[in-house]
Amino acid sequence: MINAIVLAAGKGTRMKTDLPKCAFPILEKPMINYIMDALDKTKVEKRIVVVGYKKEVFYDLLKNNCVFATQENQLGTADAVKAALNYLDDGITLIIPGDTPLINYEKINSLIETELALKKDITILTTFLDNPTGYGRIIRENGKIVRIAEEKDAYEDEKLIKEVNTGIMVVDNKFLKEAIHKIDNNNFKKEYYLTDLLKFTTDIASIILDDNDILYGINDLYALSRVEDMVRRNILKKHMLNGVNIINPESVTIYPDVVIEDGVTILQGSFISGNTIIKKGAIIGPNSELHNANVLENAKVKHSVVYDSRIGKGATVGPFAHIRMNAIIGEGNRIGNFVEVKNSILGTTTKASHLSYLGDSEIGNNVNIGCGSITVNYDGKKKSKTVIGNNVFVGCNSNLIAPIEIKDNAFIAAGSTITDNVDDNDLAIARSRQINKKGYAKKYK
Amino acid sequence: MINAIVLAAGKGTRMKTDLPKCAFPILEKPMINYIMDALDKTKVEKRIVVVGYKKEVFYDLLKNNCVFATQENQLGTADAVKAALNYLDDGITLIIPGDTPLINYEKINSLIETELALKKDITILTTFLDNPTGYGRIIRENGKIVRIAEEKDAYEDEKLIKEVNTGIMVVDNKFLKEAIHKIDNNNFKKEYYLTDLLKFTTDIASIILDDNDILYGINDLYALSRVEDMVRRNILKKHMLNGVNIINPESVTIYPDVVIEDGVTILQGSFISGNTIIKKGAIIGPNSELHNANVLENAKVKHSVVYDSRIGKGATVGPFAHIRMNAIIGEGNRIGNFVEVKNSILGTTTKASHLSYLGDSEIGNNVNIGCGSITVNYDGKKKSKTVIGNNVFVGCNSNLIAPIEIKDNAFIAAGSTITDNVDDNDLAIARSRQINKKGYAKKYK
Amino acid sequence: MINAIVLAAGKGTRMKTDLPKCAFPILEKPMINYIMDALDKTKVEKRIVVVGYKKEVFYDLLKNNCVFATQENQLGTADAVKAALNYLDDGITLIIPGDTPLINYEKINSLIETELALKKDITILTTFLDNPTGYGRIIRENGKIVRIAEEKDAYEDEKLIKEVNTGIMVVDNKFLKEAIHKIDNNNFKKEYYLTDLLKFTTDIASIILDDNDILYGINDLYALSRVEDMVRRNILKKHMLNGVNIINPESVTIYPDVVIEDGVTILQGSFISGNTIIKKGAIIGPNSELHNANVLENAKVKHSVVYDSRIGKGATVGPFAHIRMNAIIGEGNRIGNFVEVKNSILGTTTKASHLSYLGDSEIGNNVNIGCGSITVNYDGKKKSKTVIGNNVFVGCNSNLIAPIEIKDNAFIAAGSTITDNVDDNDLAIARSRQINKKGYAKKYK
Repeated sequence: MINAIVLAAGKGTRMKTDLPKCAFPILEKPMINYIMDALDKTKVEKRIVVVGYKKEVFYDLLKNNCVFATQENQLGTADAVKAALNYLDDGITLIIPGDTPLINYEKINSLIETELALKKDITILTTFLDNPTGYGRIIRENGKIVRIAEEKDAYEDEKLIKEVNTGIMVVDNKFLKEAIHKIDNNNFKKEYYLTDLLKFTTDIASIILDDNDILYGINDLYALSRVEDMVRRNILKKHMLNGVNIINPESVTIYPDVVIEDGVTILQGSFISGNTIIKKGAIIGPNSELHNANVLENAKVKHSVVYDSRIGKGATVGPFAHIRMNAIIGEGNRIGNFVEVKNSILGTTTKASHLSYLGDSEIGNNVNIGCGSITVNYDGKKKSKTVIGNNVFVGCNSNLIAPIEIKDNAFIAAGSTITDNVDDNDLAIARSRQINKKGYAKKYK
Repeated sequence: MINAIVLAAGKGTRMKTDLPKCAFPILEKPMINYIMDALDKTKVEKRIVVVGYKKEVFYDLLKNNCVFATQENQLGTADAVKAALNYLDDGITLIIPGDTPLINYEKINSLIETELALKKDITILTTFLDNPTGYGRIIRENGKIVRIAEEKDAYEDEKLIKEVNTGIMVVDNKFLKEAIHKIDNNNFKKEYYLTDLLKFTTDIASIILDDNDILYGINDLYALSRVEDMVRRNILKKHMLNGVNIINPESVTIYPDVVIEDGVTILQGSFISGNTIIKKGAIIGPNSELHNANVLENAKVKHSVVYDSRIGKGATVGPFAHIRMNAIIGEGNRIGNFVEVKNSILGTTTKASHLSYLGDSEIGNNVNIGCGSITVNYDGKKKSKTVIGNNVFVGCNSNLIAPIEIKDNAFIAAGSTITDNVDDNDLAIARSRQINKKGYAKKYK
Repeated sequence: MINAIVLAAGKGTRMKTDLPKCAFPILEKPMINYIMDALDKTKVEKRIVVVGYKKEVFYDLLKNNCVFATQENQLGTADAVKAALNYLDDGITLIIPGDTPLINYEKINSLIETELALKKDITILTTFLDNPTGYGRIIRENGKIVRIAEEKDAYEDEKLIKEVNTGIMVVDNKFLKEAIHKIDNNNFKKEYYLTDLLKFTTDIASIILDDNDILYGINDLYALSRVEDMVRRNILKKHMLNGVNIINPESVTIYPDVVIEDGVTILQGSFISGNTIIKKGAIIGPNSELHNANVLENAKVKHSVVYDSRIGKGATVGPFAHIRMNAIIGEGNRIGNFVEVKNSILGTTTKASHLSYLGDSEIGNNVNIGCGSITVNYDGKKKSKTVIGNNVFVGCNSNLIAPIEIKDNAFIAAGSTITDNVDDNDLAIARSRQINKKGYAKKYK
C-alpha cells in the first residue's frame, strides 16, 4: 500500500486570518486541495491528513477524501507524523507539507517509483538553491546523504552547501515506525524534526526537484500572493498551450476549475472563476467577469458580468450588461449596454439592446425589448413572472407589470405601463396625448 | 537592387488555428506586417514573400506591397528561398523569417550596409546566448565563420559555443543562385537548410545583434503571448518617452497604430486599439476601451467604451458610457453614466448625464437631455431620425418617437412620450394627472 | 540642530511637461512629498528646499512645512547648496536630491547617526552597482574615501570601480560653509559639483545603501513609470503584510494615502486613490475605482466607481454603479446595476437595485426604489431636493419631480410622474389606462 501523510496542522499566524494556513485559498481553491488534486494523479492509495488548528475546517474541505489524524500540540513535523502512525497501512509513505500547492504530481510519482525500485529506508526530494539560507542543508559523504543540517544547527562550512531539503520524502513504514520514536527535540527551537529520521539510517536515496517554485514558503499574505501569481501564470500558460488566445495575460485571472476550449479569445482585464465553461470561438472581455457561466460557441461578452448563467451560441453581451441567477440568453441574442437579465429564459434572436431589466421572465424568439423597458417583477410583496411570446415588439420605456402575459406578435407602444395581458397580434397602449403649449417653455427656463 | 525574401510559408501547427503562422496577429496586426513595416524603413527596394500554407491569406494582408512566390511543399528554408529565386533582381538579398516581428529596422540596415561595403558572399546576423541549446552554432576558425552547426548535427564541443545564427542574412545574388542548388537534405530532419549556404564559401562577414528578444521562437500561443508582451511593452515605452503618462502600464494595452500626443494620461486597465488618435491633455481610463476613436484635447473618458467615434475638446465621457458608430460628441459635452450615443451628432456644451440613449439623432448646442430620456429610433420596421435644436430641455424619462423634430428653446416635460414635433419655445407635455389615494398604500404592501 | 537641504530646482526637460521635475506626481503624490514624508520620520529638525524652475509650484505643494531657498540659475548641485547656506542653523546638514522618492527614512537616520557619532566633516551614502556607468565612482585609498570621480572625468581604471555616490550625504555645517566656496566648475559640464566637497577634507565616513532602487534616475516619463511601479509594489506589499488579500496585484493600484484594514479583499483591476479608507471584511472589485471613499465593514463594491462618498456596513454596490459627491449609502443597502447616487443620504436596508438615479435626495430606511426610477432634481433652472420617508415603495420607471416629499409608508405606482407631495400611507398614481387594440399590431410591424 502506498500511503501519504499530508501535514496541515499549522496555524499560519502571519496570514492574519482565522483560517488555518493550509486551508487558505489560492484563486478560490484551498491550498490543501491543490495537494489533494495532485495526489489524485499519483500512485498514492491512502491519504492521512494531519490536522490540528481549526481542524473542522478541513473536515468540510476534504470530506471523505482522506483519513484525518489530529496533532494536539504543534511540537514539530516529527510529532505531526507520529499522530498519523496508527492510520498507516503496511508499505511505504509519502510525507508532504500541506502548504506546497505548486507541487507537481509527476515529481511525486518519480519519488514513489524510486522508493519502490530501490527499497531504501528513505527516498528524499532535494534541490539546489543559489541562496540556501534558511533551508536544511543536505550533508553528503562520498556522494551519499548522511544528514540534514538545519540552518540554526549547521556549521559554517555546511552553510555553504547549496543542496537543500524540500520537506518531501517517501519512507519505508517499518523503518518509520521504529525511527520516529528516537527523534528528540534537543535543538535550537525545541521541536521534533522529521528530518532527524536521517540520523537513524544510511540507507537513503534521493532525487532532485527541477522547479524550485514549490519551495516558496507561504507565511504571510504577500508570500501567498507570490505563489498565487505562479499558480495564475501556470493556469494561463496551460490554456494558451491548448490554443486559447489571451491578450495581456498580466491583467487576466482564470481560476483553476474553469474549462476553455481552443479557439477562444480572452481580452485584457477578464476575471473568470467558478465552474465556468467557454466554448470555441467565444470572445471574452475586455474587463468581463464570469462566474459559473456557460458561454457557448462564438458568443461575445464585453465589459460585462455573468453569474450562474448561460450565454447562447453567437449571442453578444455588453458592454456593461449583467446576466445573473440562472438566466439563459438564447442563440443569436443581443443583450446590449445597461441591460440586466435575471432568472429569465430568452428564445433565439431576441434583442434587449439598451437600458432594460428582464427579471423572472420567459421570453420567446425574435422579440425586441425596447430601450428602457422593464419587467416589473416586484410589487413590494412578492415577485411575479412575465411571459412574452414570439415576435413581440416592446416599445421603449414600457413597464410590464407582472404577473402578465404578452402573446405572440403583440406590439406594446413606447411609454406604456402595461397591467393587463395582451393577446396575439394586439397593440397595447397606455399613455397620454401630447399637448404643445405655445411659448410656454420660457416659464420653465 | 536590394531585394528581400521573407519566409512565410509555414503552417504553425501548434498555434491551433487555421491561420498560417506568420499571419497570426500580435495586438491585432499580423506578424508579417511587423516585418513589412520594418522593411519600409530600410534600404530594401523589392520584397518577395514566400508563401505556402493558406497563401491567399497573405494576398489579402499584403496586397500590392510585395511579390509573392509559392513554396509548394515545406522542405526547409533553402527550398523556400529557391521558390523566390526567379523574382530576384540583380544585387543583394536580405533573407528573413516571417515570424520575427520584433526585428528592428536599424539592425537590418546595418546588415545591408555591411554587405554593401564588404561585398561578401554572405553577411550573417549572429548573436550570443547564455543558453544556446536548439540554435545553430556559429563555428569560427581564426575568427572567421566557417560553418553553422545545427543542434542535431553539432559535436559535443560545438554545443558549448554561445554564438548562434539568427536566421537573418544578406547574400550576394550571384553567389546565392549558384550555391542554393548545391544544398542537400542529408541531415537529421531531411530538410534543405539555408544555413548550409555557408558550406560553399568562406567569403563571409557577420554583425552581432544586441537584443535577443527577436530570437524568441513563436511556435504556440504561449510563445506568441510572450512576444506580444514584448511588443506591448515596446509600444508603451515609446509613448512614455514621448511624454505620455501611463499609470500601471502592466494593465494597459495600446495597439501599434494608435497615435497619442504628449501630455495625455492613460490610466489603469485601458485598452486602446485600431486607428485611435488621442490629443494633448486628454485623460483615458481607468478601464476604458477605445477603438478607432478620435479623442480631442482635454477630453476625459472614464470606464467607458468608444468605437468609431469622436469625443470633442474638453468633453467628459463616463463612467460607464458607450459611444459608437460614428457618434460625434461635441466640445464641452458631458456624457455621463449609463448613456449610449450611437450614430449621432451633438453640438457644444450639451449634456446627457445619466441613463439615456441617443441614437440616429442630430442635437444642437447647450441641450439638456434629462435622465432616462430616449430617442425612440426604431418602430419594429425601420430606423428614423431625431432632430433637436439648440437650448432644448428634455425632461427625465421622456420618449422622443422618431422621426421627430424638437426646435430651439423647446421644453419637454418629464415623463412625456413625444410623438409630434415641437416648435421653438413651446412646452410639450404628455402625461397623466397625479392622483393620491388616501391610505391605499396598505393594499399594496 | 539637524538641518536638511532638499535639492528641487531642476526642470526635468525630458518629462515633457510644464511641472518642475521634483513636483511630478508618482501615484498622485508629488515626488518631493515622498522625501518630505520620509524626513518626517527622521531626526531632521529643519528643512530647506532649494527651488528654482517654477518655484511657486513648490510653495503650493509644501506650504509651511519647510523654508525655501532660491537657486537663480542652474549651475550645479554645489551652487544649489550655496543658495541654502543662509538658512542653515548650526550643527549638521543632510543633503538629498528631490528626485529620490524611494528613499527610506531608516537609511537617512543611519546616516545622521553615523555623522553624530563620528563627527566627521562628511558622512556619505554610497552603494555598489554591477554596472556603475554614469555614476560618480568612490575613490578610496587604504579603505578611506579620498575623492569622487564623475563619469566624464574618471580615469579608465577608476571606471571599473563599482562603489558609487548616491548623491546623499550629511555634512558638518562649519566645514560646509567654508568648503563650498572653494568648489570650482573646471570640468566637462562646467558645473559646480557638490561632490567636490570631498577635495577639501579627508575626514570622511561612509555607510552603504542596501537597496539600489532609489538610484534609478527619473529623467523621463518611462523612468518615472518604472519608479512608480516600484512605489506601487511597495504599497501593495505593505498592505498584504498587514493582512489584506489582493488578487492579481499586477493589475491593482493603491495610492499612498489609502488606509486599508486587515481582512479586506481587493480583486483584480481595482484602482484606489485619494484618502480612501476601507474597513475590515470589505470586498473591493473586480474593476472598482474608489477615490476619497469610506467603505465600512463588510461592504462590497463590484465593477463600480465611488467618489467622495461613504458605503455603509454590509452594503453592496454594483456591478456598474456610480456613487459620488458626498453620497451616504446606508447600512445593508443594496445599490445595484446602472444606479447613480449623487449627494444623497440613504437610510438602512434601502434598495435601488437597477437603472436609477438618486440625486440631491434624503431617503429613509427600508425604502425600495424601483427599477428605472429617477429623482428629477433639475428643471433647467435650479436643482431641488427629494425627501423620501421610511418604508416607501417607489414603483418602476417613476419620476419624482423635486422639490418633493414622499412620506413614510407611501406607495408610488409604476410608471408615474409624481409632481405633488405624497402623504403617509397614501398611494400615488399618475398614468393612463391601458387600451388593447385588437389586431392592430400588424399596422406597426
